[in-house]
Amino acid sequence: MAEMLSSAGYATGMYGKWHLGRTPGRFPTDQGFDEWYGIPNSTDESTYASLDGFAQSGVKETYVLDAVKGQTPKQVRPYRLDYRPLIDRDLTDRAKSFIRKNAKANKPFFVYLPYTATHFPTMPHPVFRGKSGNGPWADLLMQIDSYTGELLDTLEELDIADNTIFIFTADNGPEAVRRDNTNLTTETIINGSSGPWRSTLFTSYEGALRVPFAIRWPNKIKPGRHSDEIVHAMDMLPTLATVAGAEVPQDRPIDGVDVSEFLTGDTNKSGREGFVVYMGDQIFAVKWRNWKLHFKEQSGWDGTLKTYTMPRVYNLFLDPQERNNVLFPHTWVPKAALGQLQEHIVSLKQHPPIPMGAKDPYSPPATK
Amino acid sequence: MAEMLSSAGYATGMYGKWHLGRTPGRFPTDQGFDEWYGIPNSTDESTYASLDGFAQSGVKETYVLDAVKGQTPKQVRPYRLDYRPLIDRDLTDRAKSFIRKNAKANKPFFVYLPYTATHFPTMPHPVFRGKSGNGPWADLLMQIDSYTGELLDTLEELDIADNTIFIFTADNGPEAVRRDNTNLTTETIINGSSGPWRSTLFTSYEGALRVPFAIRWPNKIKPGRHSDEIVHAMDMLPTLATVAGAEVPQDRPIDGVDVSEFLTGDTNKSGREGFVVYMGDQIFAVKWRNWKLHFKEQSGWDGTLKTYTMPRVYNLFLDPQERNNVLFPHTWVPKAALGQLQEHIVSLKQHPPIPMGAKDPYSPPATK
Repeated sequence: MAEMLSSAGYATGMYGKWHLGRTPGRFPTDQGFDEWYGIPNSTDESTYASLDGFAQSGVKETYVLDAVKGQTPKQVRPYRLDYRPLIDRDLTDRAKSFIRKNAKANKPFFVYLPYTATHFPTMPHPVFRGKSGNGPWADLLMQIDSYTGELLDTLEELDIADNTIFIFTADNGPEAVRRDNTNLTTETIINGSSGPWRSTLFTSYEGALRVPFAIRWPNKIKPGRHSDEIVHAMDMLPTLATVAGAEVPQDRPIDGVDVSEFLTGDTNKSGREGFVVYMGDQIFAVKWRNWKLHFKEQSGWDGTLKTYTMPRVYNLFLDPQERNNVLFPHTWVPKAALGQLQEHIVSLKQHPPIPMGAKDPYSPPATK
Repeated sequence: MAEMLSSAGYATGMYGKWHLGRTPGRFPTDQGFDEWYGIPNSTDESTYASLDGFAQSGVKETYVLDAVKGQTPKQVRPYRLDYRPLIDRDLTDRAKSFIRKNAKANKPFFVYLPYTATHFPTMPHPVFRGKSGNGPWADLLMQIDSYTGELLDTLEELDIADNTIFIFTADNGPEAVRRDNTNLTTETIINGSSGPWRSTLFTSYEGALRVPFAIRWPNKIKPGRHSDEIVHAMDMLPTLATVAGAEVPQDRPIDGVDVSEFLTGDTNKSGREGFVVYMGDQIFAVKWRNWKLHFKEQSGWDGTLKTYTMPRVYNLFLDPQERNNVLFPHTWVPKAALGQLQEHIVSLKQHPPIPMGAKDPYSPPATK
């Protein structure tokens, strides 16, 4: 996305968690971002320095990095528990500065702001600690709401809100770890809720797959509209390409669907009927409209893998908790749902993904 | 309610399921209703005639009854599977006639319309069968929506919508019975969903206790308003008494709270902080604000009763699925929540409820 929008003339800034490679050539500033401030991996690493045995382990500590395109990232400070409550404040401030700088220079910009909250450990900023009256988890939700409001206020203040697309979304469903499963303290417990949907992150259930998605573009996208249509995170690449006048790469298959006409309300259908559900490199399920076929299931992050000899079929409309296999009498559902899986597998054979353990950087073999 | 509103000059009609006594003196037309058409007990009794062994059992079949105040109810027809899909259509038509008759006579009226849907067996009217494309359960939801719309249209047509309070609610959370727990057919499966809340009817969890409640009173109640405040079904008695200029009985304790000012938006607080949760004649739980104390739990209608030696405390705000006992460190919650239980138990001692097996009609002993 950053490479694509950068080519289209956008300034590109990223503030937050990357987690797509921590070696030279794989950082955000090697992948299209002009600048980046944040952490290379996940936020649980902020606890490392405080844990018994880590100091003697030889495992390298994580650093907060500050990077500019074309340069080696600078280590700002170790990512430890003292900075964990503070980092999202800094991410917000840097994003605001970046927006301000580019708005004043009349330069189109793309900001990607993946907050470290609400990941473990649950530690709100001192300004928000205790503010909700419902514990640190709810404090953290208030904090994110408030920071998001600051970003929107910044756009208004710069008088660019009408010409800026603002998306609030997540890359996975909530985490929720029960007190009795861990040695978490009251302060660090992970209290995410997936509402009506089954389970949480690290499963192939709806609780892991469904995420909030709110998009704001005044005078272009109708406010208050909502829909039961399926849209996938990977649809953002071709969609924003259309909106920004950018070009998607032509040298590889693109799994995303351009849903720009759906978002602006010109059509009521998203153009996406379903998708394939992976856990790691294994296909767990296929979703098609309100139906879901499970080939494998794992009930939680530390659950046991169940593999089915015959797929289980759930009707998400009637059974959002994915409890009742209705393969019988709905044996027609696999016939309808599996076309997209077949297409996906054929595509994978034609364009094989990067093999595990491949040398980095990796060049794909020439396409047949 | 019917007695109270009848005394205040209202015409009172009831159409549907009663289930508060099937002996003379206990029917709706003995309890304040001018007329009644419906069934005395639950709708599962409509299956009786089709079940092996019933004919030889000596158990009496249920009849659909048509009744007028002061007269013995007339048996209209046996309540069997042939009539089960049709009855709610008749209930709606009779309610509409009653409304029309009284509106034209300029007589204030109270209609109580407890539909037999969505109870087992799940059999939509032929007009709605297959209409949703999502099976009989969803067809039935469409049917209820449609019938409710007819009632609202009737009020508009008679030009009395602005002076009529319309309440859509339920007396319990959804039923949901898994296919593998019963010998239900695809057509009769009970597919209710309690959304984010735990469990369903026949438990003391939120999935059993939370019900839809929508009230419409144009120019008096602000449209679109919603609230997290607690309101209990039993609050309707004193609330509607205030609105209708009726009087609640003074010779007994009234557990309801007048929430009329809350409904009209004159206050933001309902006046109710919590309530005591019964299953049958046993106290299972106490709810207070967003907290709940469980003394006993039963996970489903055919579950096993668990009794706790120390109450379990759930934070419904952070844990809507009622999974994590947070008595520690929240030992202050029982102190805050148990006042209402103590008050309730003192009141029960002062005004004992009707003992099981008491002669009907029952006269309470004189109050001390």
